[in-house]
Formats: sequence, C-alpha cells, structure tokens
Amino acid sequence: MTTNQEEVKLLGATGSPFVCRVQIALKLKEIEYKFVEENLVNKSELLLKYNPIYKKVPVFVHNDKPIIESLVILEYIDEIWKQNPILPSDPYQRSLARFWSKFIDDKIVLASSKSVFTIDEKEREKHIEESTEALQILENELKGKFFGGEEINFVDIAAVFIAFWIPLVQDIADLQLFTDEKFPKLYNWSQEFLNHPVVKQNLPPRDPLFAFFKARYDGLLAASK
Amino acid sequence: MTTNQEEVKLLGATGSPFVCRVQIALKLKEIEYKFVEENLVNKSELLLKYNPIYKKVPVFVHNDKPIIESLVILEYIDEIWKQNPILPSDPYQRSLARFWSKFIDDKIVLASSKSVFTIDEKEREKHIEESTEALQILENELKGKFFGGEEINFVDIAAVFIAFWIPLVQDIADLQLFTDEKFPKLYNWSQEFLNHPVVKQNLPPRDPLFAFFKARYDGLLAASK
Repeated sequence: MTTNQEEVKLLGATGSPFVCRVQIALKLKEIEYKFVEENLVNKSELLLKYNPIYKKVPVFVHNDKPIIESLVILEYIDEIWKQNPILPSDPYQRSLARFWSKFIDDKIVLASSKSVFTIDEKEREKHIEESTEALQILENELKGKFFGGEEINFVDIAAVFIAFWIPLVQDIADLQLFTDEKFPKLYNWSQEFLNHPVVKQNLPPRDPLFAFFKARYDGLLAASK
Repeated sequence: MTTNQEEVKLLGATGSPFVCRVQIALKLKEIEYKFVEENLVNKSELLLKYNPIYKKVPVFVHNDKPIIESLVILEYIDEIWKQNPILPSDPYQRSLARFWSKFIDDKIVLASSKSVFTIDEKEREKHIEESTEALQILENELKGKFFGGEEINFVDIAAVFIAFWIPLVQDIADLQLFTDEKFPKLYNWSQEFLNHPVVKQNLPPRDPLFAFFKARYDGLLAASK
C-alpha cells in the first residue's frame, strides 16, 4: 500500500502497549513498515535524534519526519492512509473516540499499573479503587461488540492496554482488577478484541513479558523489605 | 455563521484557562454561542447531566450533544466550522500541533501551577525546575510570531495558559517563572498573543482572578502554619 519512495518506520520495543497500538493500526491499514527494536537501557542515536524530548518509544517515522505520542501517531496514520478508517467519519463520534482514548490514558493506564507496582498498602488500595471506578465507567460505555461497533476503531486500539496488559500484570500480584465477574461486557470485548486476527498477530509473546514484569515486581518487593 | 436550527452552548466558568481556549476558538471562527456561567461550588443539573464523569467545565454543547476536554472540543469546532482553521491542513503539521498542545497540558499546566501552590520548599523547587525545563523546550520550538506562523493556531490557543495564567499566579508568590529574560521568544509571543484582538476580548478580567488565586494561596500558607 506504500509507494517505493516512501519510508515508513516504527521505533518500538516489544512489550510496550503504546507501541502495540501503532502496530495494530498499521496492520489494520495494511501498511508495510520497518520495525526498529529499541533497547531502552541503551537507547539508539536514532531514538535520541527523533525524540529528544521524551526519549521514548513509539516514534513513528514517515519520510524522515518523526511523530511522537501513540494517539497522535494513530491520528496521523488515519489521515495519511484512508483505507480501513480507525476514527469515525462523523465529527461527534470522532470527538467521543478522542475523549474515551484520552480517558483510558488519563484514568486507567497509570492507576492500574500502580495497582500492581505499589508497595504501600494504602496507596495501592487507592489506585485499585481509581482503576475500578474508571473501568466501571468504560464498562457502562461499551454498547456493541467493539467500541467501534462491528469493527475495531480508535478506542479499541487505545484499550489494548486493558485487554492484554492489565490481565498480565494483575496475575503477578494475584490481583482481581479486571475480571469477567466484575466487568462482563468489557471482558467479553477483550476476548473478541484479542482474538481479532490483526490484533492477535501483533501482541507481544506473553511469557517473556510476564517474566519481565514479575522480575520488576519481585525487585520492588525485595527493595521494600 | 450558525443557522437558526443550531444550538451552540458553552458551559464554562470565567477564569478557567480551559474554558478560555474554547472561547478564543469560537470567536476566531465567529460562531455565535450561549455562554452558561457555572458556579463550581454548586454545579448545575445541566453540568452534571452533560459531564457526569468529570463534572467539570468546559462542556461544549452542540445541538444537545455534549463534548468534553478542551482540546477535543477545539478539534470538534475545527471540523464542524471550516472557516479560519485552527489546525494546519498538512497532516504532519497537524500532528505537531497535537503533540505540542498535549505537551503543554502534560508538562506545563500542572507543574507551573504547583510551582506556586505548593508549600513544601523541596517539592516546590522540583515543580519550578520541571516547568522551567518544559518552558525552555517550548521556547526553542517557537519559530515565528505565533506557533501557527503568522496566524494563531491550535498550539497558541492551548498556550493561553502560559501567556495569561502563569504571569498572574507567579506574581502572587513573587516567583520569576516566566519572564522576558528567561524566555525572550516565548515572552514576545505572549505579548503578541494577548494583544491579538480575538484573544484580548476573551480573557477574564485580571483583578478578580488575581484576588481569587491570592486568597487560595494565602489559605494554603495559613493552613501550613
């Protein structure tokens, strides 16, 4: 779908939910691209050149022009490649998609991570409460098979963190943050979403990622003793 | 510019930088709208109905459909009313505008507020350092008269917080966060921006706002003693 002149590159790191968002979007649009795996312990010159402010992945590079922030990248991809739109065409529906994606980033990503990676019991309870409240709001919002209706859209892609990362990290801490019983609609959505062919082939392998987070969790526990 | 059938309403509160963003955008586009002043101590039924999640202003209401989050509202307004565009037409430039507006929200708004409204000296120093660093990054980014070049765009509107609110609250704490000497380009920008006819007539009156923040600051100081 890209011309010979085009350079489409993604600086990423396997295991990052934000990188995964971009991978899903590119695959949905059937864009060929070069994936450059970054070592986040020893960042490449390229990463520092393209993202001197945050020095983080993902960085999407299109004809030598870098784009940063996963949701900004998704908007860009949707504007450049029109096939299989990920934002709705109706302006009001677009605004809702932007709102809910921001809601996921502001209210769910950090709070649910901290629900696992926090030692202080009281602090941790607070994060669990916050995540639960936000997940409940999202549960109430989900009307169809996907947030995009019959097809995956912007919000579904943003919510890959909920479908894949939360179940993974909650297992490490034996936490019941996101379960079938608590959020039946959201849970069903997550199963549909994870089994979508495009999503499925773009998820990182679970075991090494589990081991990575487990080591981090154990390190945190050890340091607190 | 609106038809008789249209209802365009803004639930706001004078003195909110996020509401001010929407007011500037609407004025730039010459959209007539009804401003509903909210009492944030005693929130209206309408606000609770339209924004049950955050219960905050601004809420932009277009034909009974509520839109929340100031930057999401700006995108919506720009999509619905095409005159005097606030986002660039080029997709890459659009992505940059989205990136920098998010940067302002993520890195400057909170850190600079906390540079004033924090009692603990060490914490406060940390916020001042963070704000200074972020303002420096923005200073380096500014190339023309406005972030939008010769005309005000999305980033300029998002940055109204820097032009109007930071100078106001820093005076309360006798803080030199954003000055001509430290950030000459950004400071010049702020003067151009504040004197732009559309911006000028949409800024809240300074004195009552100063008194409001001063009372908050004094209350904080008193409570810490």
